[in-house]
Amino acid sequence: MEQKAIFGRVAIIGQGLIGSSIARAATHFSVVHNLVLTDASSNVRKRVAELGLGLVTETAREAARDADLVMICVPVGQCGPVAEEIRDHLKAGAIVCDVGSVKKAVVRDITPHLPKGVHFVPAHPVAGTEDSGPDAGLHDLFVNRWCILTPTENSEENAVRKVAEFWRALGSNVEQMSVERHDEVLALISHLPHLIAFTMVGTASHHEESTDSDVIKFSAGGFRDFTRIAASNPTMWRDVFLNNKETVLEMIGRFSEDLHVLTRAIRRGDGDTLLEQFSKSRIVRRRIVEAGQDTAAPDFGRHQHSAKSEAAVLRPYASSFE
Amino acid sequence: MEQKAIFGRVAIIGQGLIGSSIARAATHFSVVHNLVLTDASSNVRKRVAELGLGLVTETAREAARDADLVMICVPVGQCGPVAEEIRDHLKAGAIVCDVGSVKKAVVRDITPHLPKGVHFVPAHPVAGTEDSGPDAGLHDLFVNRWCILTPTENSEENAVRKVAEFWRALGSNVEQMSVERHDEVLALISHLPHLIAFTMVGTASHHEESTDSDVIKFSAGGFRDFTRIAASNPTMWRDVFLNNKETVLEMIGRFSEDLHVLTRAIRRGDGDTLLEQFSKSRIVRRRIVEAGQDTAAPDFGRHQHSAKSEAAVLRPYASSFE
Repeated sequence: MEQKAIFGRVAIIGQGLIGSSIARAATHFSVVHNLVLTDASSNVRKRVAELGLGLVTETAREAARDADLVMICVPVGQCGPVAEEIRDHLKAGAIVCDVGSVKKAVVRDITPHLPKGVHFVPAHPVAGTEDSGPDAGLHDLFVNRWCILTPTENSEENAVRKVAEFWRALGSNVEQMSVERHDEVLALISHLPHLIAFTMVGTASHHEESTDSDVIKFSAGGFRDFTRIAASNPTMWRDVFLNNKETVLEMIGRFSEDLHVLTRAIRRGDGDTLLEQFSKSRIVRRRIVEAGQDTAAPDFGRHQHSAKSEAAVLRPYASSFE
Repeated sequence: MEQKAIFGRVAIIGQGLIGSSIARAATHFSVVHNLVLTDASSNVRKRVAELGLGLVTETAREAARDADLVMICVPVGQCGPVAEEIRDHLKAGAIVCDVGSVKKAVVRDITPHLPKGVHFVPAHPVAGTEDSGPDAGLHDLFVNRWCILTPTENSEENAVRKVAEFWRALGSNVEQMSVERHDEVLALISHLPHLIAFTMVGTASHHEESTDSDVIKFSAGGFRDFTRIAASNPTMWRDVFLNNKETVLEMIGRFSEDLHVLTRAIRRGDGDTLLEQFSKSRIVRRRIVEAGQDTAAPDFGRHQHSAKSEAAVLRPYASSFE
């Protein structure tokens, strides 16, 4: 890679899946001179040092000192406290960026803490896996994935440009939209699917506990795909739902209406309505494959990767941040 | 493979994903002497002949003639009509088997048509991909997957043993249970997840149509995994819901209750309830990986298979049967 460094010193606060992926990607694509990393968990800091992802500091404020770019990669509910901790240690002209899955609450929580002359560019890389912690990070996690910037009226144009350049250098496609639009679209295509997956896993678990049925054994019938989504970081998701409450509640309402329509079709034996809806789904799927947002490989059967990944799932020292 | 053939002549009626996978697997594992294949669609029959999967006949009755084992691999709603068509062409002692995702309705629809001396062993291989049609078949689709046999009181013991032997030879683990228990467990871990996925895709589509939002563009945030499940064969799924109606409605009811509980937690800002439920999901996921029903590879990021599969999705000549 012959990439020219975009930032001199970059601090990444929070070394979970996203934070440690940014660290790996920044090194892999040579976009920074110095990486300074930290995490609220001492176990995570120790592991990040072992992995050699960058210089590790004990605290967020030490990491932020003299940084040209500070990436806050912690659960949404922790963004305010982190901003408060680092506020007096940011250098003039520094850019602060986050990676939160909701933007309105993050802007609300971070902005009041930032001194004049520090630029805040809210961002959300729409990428991830169901794994957590510093070992789960991947240097190519952001390649061909969207990173959404939601600059506020206070975001300086030059800072936005540099942050966009940074994400493009990590392989992302960059899109800009308003905070409100972001939170609405993501509520629909990310927050709602996760809530439904968590619910489905709960429903199956209750049944298994009460009847000793083998929901695990026969999970290849569809259920296992929900458990994959529902294996995502619990703390991160709690914070997402609490911080995009109104919009998520609206989307749950719409989903419930649509579920009622299909439920009624089943009850009435209305096969035409079912067939019509199911056929439409197929078209949506094709458009996603065509848009390069998924592969056409028949994944349901899991033939492409029967070899066990070296990355273990559900590491015990999952970041208390991410 | 040094497998001894278990059956002489095997007829497979319906050459969709499952039927054509059985054909491929039977050849690959050398478990039959002669394979006779057919499908209601002339395009599919033509394609099966091109693929050289076995001898192709025009009609189900021709295929069934002199067969030792007749596998009915059509959507659940077509099982009765197929049984009626082949009834007078089955030889004495022949075994009839199906692969339907619901068992009570299939037993109800097939049994009355079968002459004395013909043995019926209802079966359900819990395996599949989101693709359809004869090109989608995979010779190892059933390897390490469960095949559930639901013998009725009329199923002859020797016939059940041979069908179990057949499925084991294709790589499956075989389990027996009652028709009722099958339909309940599968309603929960397969039918309900599919209905939810179809619903979710519908909800997102409505929103996209009305607001021109980019649900496709940002689908990697979780939504795309639902579209994968919801890309499964529409006709097959319509028939499943119509033929396991009461049990599916019961499961929808339970899911809705659980969704209400999480919705209320979000509305009230009750983070503890959310965190508790989300953390439980992670444990279920770990058990599925440990049970060998999925890999631990971080699939959300789709790093294992960025290369495009040679198998195209959504083939235009998807079987009218499967």
